[in-house]
Amino acid sequence: MIPRLFVAASLGQGQRITLDADRTHYIKNVMRRALGDAVGLFNGRDGEWLGHIDIYGRNSAEIALNSQRRPQLASPDIWLAFAPVKRARIDFIAEKATELGVSLLWPVMTRRAEPSRVNIERLTNIAVEAAEQTERLDIPVVRDATQLDKMLAEWPRDRKLFVCAEAGEALPVAEAMVAHKGMPAGILIGPEGGFAPAELDALRKLPFVVAIGLGPRLLRAETAAVVALACWQALAGDGATVDSRPPFRNEFLS
Amino acid sequence: MIPRLFVAASLGQGQRITLDADRTHYIKNVMRRALGDAVGLFNGRDGEWLGHIDIYGRNSAEIALNSQRRPQLASPDIWLAFAPVKRARIDFIAEKATELGVSLLWPVMTRRAEPSRVNIERLTNIAVEAAEQTERLDIPVVRDATQLDKMLAEWPRDRKLFVCAEAGEALPVAEAMVAHKGMPAGILIGPEGGFAPAELDALRKLPFVVAIGLGPRLLRAETAAVVALACWQALAGDGATVDSRPPFRNEFLS
Repeated sequence: MIPRLFVAASLGQGQRITLDADRTHYIKNVMRRALGDAVGLFNGRDGEWLGHIDIYGRNSAEIALNSQRRPQLASPDIWLAFAPVKRARIDFIAEKATELGVSLLWPVMTRRAEPSRVNIERLTNIAVEAAEQTERLDIPVVRDATQLDKMLAEWPRDRKLFVCAEAGEALPVAEAMVAHKGMPAGILIGPEGGFAPAELDALRKLPFVVAIGLGPRLLRAETAAVVALACWQALAGDGATVDSRPPFRNEFLS
Repeated sequence: MIPRLFVAASLGQGQRITLDADRTHYIKNVMRRALGDAVGLFNGRDGEWLGHIDIYGRNSAEIALNSQRRPQLASPDIWLAFAPVKRARIDFIAEKATELGVSLLWPVMTRRAEPSRVNIERLTNIAVEAAEQTERLDIPVVRDATQLDKMLAEWPRDRKLFVCAEAGEALPVAEAMVAHKGMPAGILIGPEGGFAPAELDALRKLPFVVAIGLGPRLLRAETAAVVALACWQALAGDGATVDSRPPFRNEFLS
């Protein structure tokens, strides 16, 4: 298994990339890679590049790029807006949503949202690490936390917003996602305590909102986020075709 | 919100149920319920019953049952077999699979499975707690950890086994689950390191096995478990109909 790292720098033939202290520690001490060992790099623009560890400095490493391993591919266009939940569970949302290919993570302050502050840098770091492990070629954008009404005012009118509604009328998740296949989409998950009735009323009146139901069991907020994203990817995203498989895994079969 | 507790005892009109120290602590100190307050009880057989706290003892409580709140409903018949992963992540599988309505949890030892022991009691406790929170009327059965070949020998021949395969040919998850709707089903998730090639070969030869793909990103084992279960419930389980909604939530709208 070749360790993969996200970097900000441009990637191209013959280039050399300097890794920071954290990433150097990761490949040297966690992954135990020696000079000359292969590393994969991606930046969200230039595909994935294979390089080798050319120099280990005190708190840095230099990777010499050899060749492009994969060209850049567009990620599915799916956003996740979510009311913040407490620490382990918000970390979980960032990690799992990234694994599930989300393109944008947007913390949204609803009336009953509990933590009033969100550490955007922390969420971004979790998303980067998850992207490295999940073979993605990009990382999700993490937006600043926004009040619900402001977020709705900013929401693009041509982008469907699937609102996970525990109460009131709702389309079953699979039906809703098949019906809106091919459109730009986003998912909105309320806080642990649910949306306030007035919030749900206001949401339902918006022309781009589709209220969806996730079945008869009451789901925790972070579970709802994963379920809705998983269903979207399987039915309207990039999980629907036979050749949609993780890269490089067949090598392990022979 | 009425706290819900799973108990072993039979539930019926006029009965009194004694709670153990843990559950007493939960309703008294965590949920801060007073004498006379309502509690919901379920046991997987008699539906959900409403009672009130009649006596607080030193380390126990007595609930007097008043009326049945919901009759017993059959849960969807979906099993989850999974190679054990490390602590936080195996806890996560037990919690999320229970939220997603799994009827049986079965730890399976594959060649690359990492922890060699599984704490079944711990997993059961997590599943019970998740069932209480998710409004289920039953708890999943947790089987003892079993070697893969033994598990396959015991697997009922009329039950489809969806094997999440990272490599080789596989049907997209949604297609596979729609195609086998209405049949008893189970899902098998490999360990972090994946199935060994020989294991995957042997699995593919079994007539009840359907290899499925979960899209182009490499998922962690616990994410794969949630994705496969979520898709099954949405497409072949109890999440597919409009009236499939969490109970009691509409009360919060008015």
